[in-house]
Amino acid sequence: MTIEASSTTTVSRRLRLGMVGGGRGAFIGAVHRIAARLDDRYELVAGALSSDPERARASAADLHIAPDRAYSDFKAMAKAEAARPDGIDVVAIVTPNHMHAPIATAFLNAGIHVICDKPMTRTVAEAEALATLVADTGLIFVLTHNYSGYPMIRQARSMVAAGELGPIRLVQVEYPQDWLTVAAETMGSKQAEWRTDPARSGLAGSVGDIGSHAMQLAEYVSGLQCEALMADLTTFVPGRRLDDNAGMLLRFAGGARGMLWCSQVAPGNANALRLRIYGERAGLEWAQETPNELALSPFGEPTRTITRSGPGANAVAAHASRIPGGHPEGYLEAFAQIYADAAELILARLERRSPDPAALVVPTVGDGVRGVRFINAAVASSQANAAWTRIADV
Amino acid sequence: MTIEASSTTTVSRRLRLGMVGGGRGAFIGAVHRIAARLDDRYELVAGALSSDPERARASAADLHIAPDRAYSDFKAMAKAEAARPDGIDVVAIVTPNHMHAPIATAFLNAGIHVICDKPMTRTVAEAEALATLVADTGLIFVLTHNYSGYPMIRQARSMVAAGELGPIRLVQVEYPQDWLTVAAETMGSKQAEWRTDPARSGLAGSVGDIGSHAMQLAEYVSGLQCEALMADLTTFVPGRRLDDNAGMLLRFAGGARGMLWCSQVAPGNANALRLRIYGERAGLEWAQETPNELALSPFGEPTRTITRSGPGANAVAAHASRIPGGHPEGYLEAFAQIYADAAELILARLERRSPDPAALVVPTVGDGVRGVRFINAAVASSQANAAWTRIADV
Amino acid sequence: MTIEASSTTTVSRRLRLGMVGGGRGAFIGAVHRIAARLDDRYELVAGALSSDPERARASAADLHIAPDRAYSDFKAMAKAEAARPDGIDVVAIVTPNHMHAPIATAFLNAGIHVICDKPMTRTVAEAEALATLVADTGLIFVLTHNYSGYPMIRQARSMVAAGELGPIRLVQVEYPQDWLTVAAETMGSKQAEWRTDPARSGLAGSVGDIGSHAMQLAEYVSGLQCEALMADLTTFVPGRRLDDNAGMLLRFAGGARGMLWCSQVAPGNANALRLRIYGERAGLEWAQETPNELALSPFGEPTRTITRSGPGANAVAAHASRIPGGHPEGYLEAFAQIYADAAELILARLERRSPDPAALVVPTVGDGVRGVRFINAAVASSQANAAWTRIADV
Amino acid sequence: MTIEASSTTTVSRRLRLGMVGGGRGAFIGAVHRIAARLDDRYELVAGALSSDPERARASAADLHIAPDRAYSDFKAMAKAEAARPDGIDVVAIVTPNHMHAPIATAFLNAGIHVICDKPMTRTVAEAEALATLVADTGLIFVLTHNYSGYPMIRQARSMVAAGELGPIRLVQVEYPQDWLTVAAETMGSKQAEWRTDPARSGLAGSVGDIGSHAMQLAEYVSGLQCEALMADLTTFVPGRRLDDNAGMLLRFAGGARGMLWCSQVAPGNANALRLRIYGERAGLEWAQETPNELALSPFGEPTRTITRSGPGANAVAAHASRIPGGHPEGYLEAFAQIYADAAELILARLERRSPDPAALVVPTVGDGVRGVRFINAAVASSQANAAWTRIADV
Repeated sequence: MTIEASSTTTVSRRLRLGMVGGGRGAFIGAVHRIAARLDDRYELVAGALSSDPERARASAADLHIAPDRAYSDFKAMAKAEAARPDGIDVVAIVTPNHMHAPIATAFLNAGIHVICDKPMTRTVAEAEALATLVADTGLIFVLTHNYSGYPMIRQARSMVAAGELGPIRLVQVEYPQDWLTVAAETMGSKQAEWRTDPARSGLAGSVGDIGSHAMQLAEYVSGLQCEALMADLTTFVPGRRLDDNAGMLLRFAGGARGMLWCSQVAPGNANALRLRIYGERAGLEWAQETPNELALSPFGEPTRTITRSGPGANAVAAHASRIPGGHPEGYLEAFAQIYADAAELILARLERRSPDPAALVVPTVGDGVRGVRFINAAVASSQANAAWTRIADV
Repeated sequence: MTIEASSTTTVSRRLRLGMVGGGRGAFIGAVHRIAARLDDRYELVAGALSSDPERARASAADLHIAPDRAYSDFKAMAKAEAARPDGIDVVAIVTPNHMHAPIATAFLNAGIHVICDKPMTRTVAEAEALATLVADTGLIFVLTHNYSGYPMIRQARSMVAAGELGPIRLVQVEYPQDWLTVAAETMGSKQAEWRTDPARSGLAGSVGDIGSHAMQLAEYVSGLQCEALMADLTTFVPGRRLDDNAGMLLRFAGGARGMLWCSQVAPGNANALRLRIYGERAGLEWAQETPNELALSPFGEPTRTITRSGPGANAVAAHASRIPGGHPEGYLEAFAQIYADAAELILARLERRSPDPAALVVPTVGDGVRGVRFINAAVASSQANAAWTRIADV
Repeated sequence: MTIEASSTTTVSRRLRLGMVGGGRGAFIGAVHRIAARLDDRYELVAGALSSDPERARASAADLHIAPDRAYSDFKAMAKAEAARPDGIDVVAIVTPNHMHAPIATAFLNAGIHVICDKPMTRTVAEAEALATLVADTGLIFVLTHNYSGYPMIRQARSMVAAGELGPIRLVQVEYPQDWLTVAAETMGSKQAEWRTDPARSGLAGSVGDIGSHAMQLAEYVSGLQCEALMADLTTFVPGRRLDDNAGMLLRFAGGARGMLWCSQVAPGNANALRLRIYGERAGLEWAQETPNELALSPFGEPTRTITRSGPGANAVAAHASRIPGGHPEGYLEAFAQIYADAAELILARLERRSPDPAALVVPTVGDGVRGVRFINAAVASSQANAAWTRIADV
Repeated sequence: MTIEASSTTTVSRRLRLGMVGGGRGAFIGAVHRIAARLDDRYELVAGALSSDPERARASAADLHIAPDRAYSDFKAMAKAEAARPDGIDVVAIVTPNHMHAPIATAFLNAGIHVICDKPMTRTVAEAEALATLVADTGLIFVLTHNYSGYPMIRQARSMVAAGELGPIRLVQVEYPQDWLTVAAETMGSKQAEWRTDPARSGLAGSVGDIGSHAMQLAEYVSGLQCEALMADLTTFVPGRRLDDNAGMLLRFAGGARGMLWCSQVAPGNANALRLRIYGERAGLEWAQETPNELALSPFGEPTRTITRSGPGANAVAAHASRIPGGHPEGYLEAFAQIYADAAELILARLERRSPDPAALVVPTVGDGVRGVRFINAAVASSQANAAWTRIADV
């Protein structure tokens, strides 16, 4: 039980949060706001929630944002907030993918920390430019690869790092969904519209939307970088402009092999992200839809089910947990953990101290660059009839 | 996806929340605060977080409560807050059980709405007095039987009410835990100390702490009242002063039968609350540790797994959901639903309008009276060697 | 892998098996025959498969039984087979319950070993008379409480006996089915007809048919005798003459408590027999529909899933297994284990040697007596409004 | 309940079965014998159980085979049995892979039907020669791809064929094991020795042993032929001479895509064969370790769990089932189904009638040819750095 434990230290106020995107009708913006509220480290005080002024104003009012801090232009927001004595400490970027880079650039240039949704940018060039800017400004940049906020994922990562599995041989990851089994983008689903639109999503469909989560999680937990892949991307739904399914063979640094499957046309799967890692001495299995459990199978011994805040849970998991075992935490809590860790990194900066090491595992701009490279490599491989493609080469 | 949907209506401000109990080191107070924050309907502005003045002050500071609203005496708090123009709208009572009645009484008498943890009181007399006071004042009184905030529980309840199971024959409910398998109360666990102490917990141990949840859930979903029970309460751990296990046979109005098992000495069970209801035409099964699923078994057809926000989820479930299916919600979201529904009831009162009917299903003082009667009946039955005891007779 | 291991020892021929009951259209007789064949210890050479001569003859022909050994009168069969030099070694009794006692008596008196289905008899007097006869004749009498043939049940029993759970506190057992949710006995189901007919089934319906299995398994694994029970038997389906649901509170020798639920009106349950046992140091859980797994939960440690022939399986489980782990064995193999153990006991007698101790755990006439007492006690308790009833007193 | 139903028709005797291979200490031979016994269609009367005369003799005695029909030379056996008036009807070949072709050839040439273990041969040339011989002789040849004997697999196949899933888009299959995580072949495991020995196993290790099962099942259920694959075979255990892990991307006739993973180095997996098929209208999922369940997910509807002999099970499943739902059948019963269907095909030939159409789905020599082609294509692809390889081209 670590409820609000660290809130008892030196935090004298909540961080002031701004948001770009996430107005009425949006999905992920609301998730970010719940995540920011959940552990009480932020208060939302400003927003450019829509580029439509009327919609921006109404959305801000819904969220108790003062009218003078309801913007419709993110550049104006960056400038005005940077100039206020009570200006925002950090901005959350929750727009469609193609806007991430210009918005992040504007706020970083204004000296404001950034929490950004993924995939980070559309192109590798944009991603690298952003990484350079983050390095130059020295600001905190957190990427909401939210699945890395799950306590059992944190524990799995620490167990692999500690060598409990022995040298890793295999990394099997999959993320099937079913919501695009039919042409939802022609049936009024705004989510489906922009996610299947190359102008807003980028080069890839399922690979960018969920394959990138799968790859990030695989690397995050295994501690290994994927060096090369063969990817077979398919668009099953007639008229769709981006892939809705992909199979990949993976080769990791050090010789480990793996497979990645992502799909949005697999009926019966909602968000069935699942990771399995096998080493010379043990295997691990985790599934996002039952996230409070982690199966550990030491070779030759019975499988153990480690539960969040239950027997076998370690300190790394405890850092990312709020309540006792048997009371399930879920997606929002994992998302909140990314925000909690971002808060710790930003506060440590404000307070000129070293951050809690447990917060340092949060995904950042480097993960963003890798994610964009991965998407590009997958698309390039598929265009070459699934030829081996080195991620470093795209 | 109902994210913040209803926050876009007429709510012009967050409700002002006070809290009694829940200072540093407490468990359930922190849960209540997360629940209150999650859907953004409340701001915590006052508290008597501890009866120890120093602890009360420090706890309030942790939570960004202004010093002049950090009380150590709940009576003083009720009086002062009632007198302020910006006084609290509602108080959350999160103390050990024996203090619920006097605190609730003080705030109701001050004209302040109440959200109270369970079991509501120690004695039936206290419970009935409180029910009378609630009726007399006309104030909102919500009891945090939090499991009734789970979307799939709400759906189960609505399906039973709509007759989808046919007339109900059987109600099987169980709530095993394992944390009191050993004498944790002698090993420094504050939670174990007060929960096994008759002075603070009341007549019963496991029956009051978790059996009462099980019974409430059984009645809540089945729509049936338990009329009589046979209860065999046992204390397995030497030196313990209250029961740590109980088995019961149940008879419901209308002829349905059932069984209830609660235990705190069943190794391998964390919070394994599980409800099964069988009618003439179908059965339902739900388990708290995998709360996003509801199994429906129409007689003669394959079992269907209904998922929160997935296929088969109904409007009642949608009301209590925040995010799409496959992204698990958990305990905190269910707890938050109780708070969200309480907010709707209070706001409707403030705005002189009818509340959203979906919020009316929240447990209230009547459930509290039944809960205390149930505990008393179970103890009385057990003292009579598990003789049939009518709940109305205690 | 223990495949046919012990068939390589001194067995020079298969045992000669006769069968009473189990003609065309019967259910359990065919199961017994598969069970007898599976491990190749028996050949079926004689039968009184029906009391109708024509049906008996045709049924025998189906099963390659020689015409001169196809009887329709079990008394004639016992007499004739006892007189043949190649007469049967053992008879399997698979008739409806009311015929078990006279048939077993006839064959025991003819000097022939007996394998008998359960419940053993209708009355306690019959059961005790049979026990006396078995003792007097010194013959082998095996009762097919087939669930005790599952390898993981054998392992659970051995773990409890070895003290791995510590002193036992709780025994929770349930056996819900759904096939009698409607009045199947009026819709042409022969199985439903005799199982709901007091003349053929005895005093009880669900309690005799499946409750008796549940109780036997609870005692078999826990090693504890149930001393007293409170039973609430109900008949939900109008017109039905025997109970179709029962809830019970149990008290075991030594102070352990328990609960038993059996039902034939719980939609969604086929044969959902499930046993949970909790001691001071660990808990065990097993479910018949996934019989190859046994969950062990040492207090304070993660739950381990022990699998048949997999890591953690012990020698007792290996004795009852045929194939490697991950290749599921099921109901027929468990039933076959009872036959395999019976064969070992009979062969040891024929070969004048001590039997393999691993075979000695097979249920016998004593279990049969306890089973009949249990049924009688449950009925008596229910008739006394679920009053505490001592099993020894009926 | 189909117990022995068809045994009541015109079958006047059991088929006479011979066996080659499967002497003392062997594994799969014993499985074949149980499978042959289980449904009572065969009696084992002859065998060349070992090429070592003494071992052959002793093994035959264990199995009650008459001394004059205990051979050590399969050619002598084929000749002698063909000459006997009571000679075997059919031979079961259960030797290591490299001997399948010559033995099958000898018995087919002697006019004796064949039941053969898989993979059928080591080379494509051998496989095609055998197919030609089967065609020329007109004899029955059944390949024991035993997983295709599972009732829920049969049902899945029939549902796909009936169009219940719509056109198929995706076929995902995997078969992980863990028993070769360490170098078991150097630790005295005879199973590991021959299965990792190219001379006895053929070109491939895990791909031949279990990958071939996975591919057969994928094609069997989907009704689609895999046209091309990319395969990345790896040997993780130092010193091992064949692959112990493989990942593959698959392209099926008609445009469906798929993935195949087989591994013998994945700790925590015993025989975790799992098949998922997705069409335009629904998805199906089945796992070998819980074989009595089949999950059907129509797009937009809750997932249904169809159970063997339970609600939703169809006639095709009933044909392959023995006992009521909720009483699990397993690996041995599925294997027995292959034998039962083979018996029907052979008997129909003997009785000059058409066989039961339900038996015609049993795998035969054509599946064997495809299986050998698959293995060869996978090895060829991997040797070409996982290049696309057409199965028809090897």
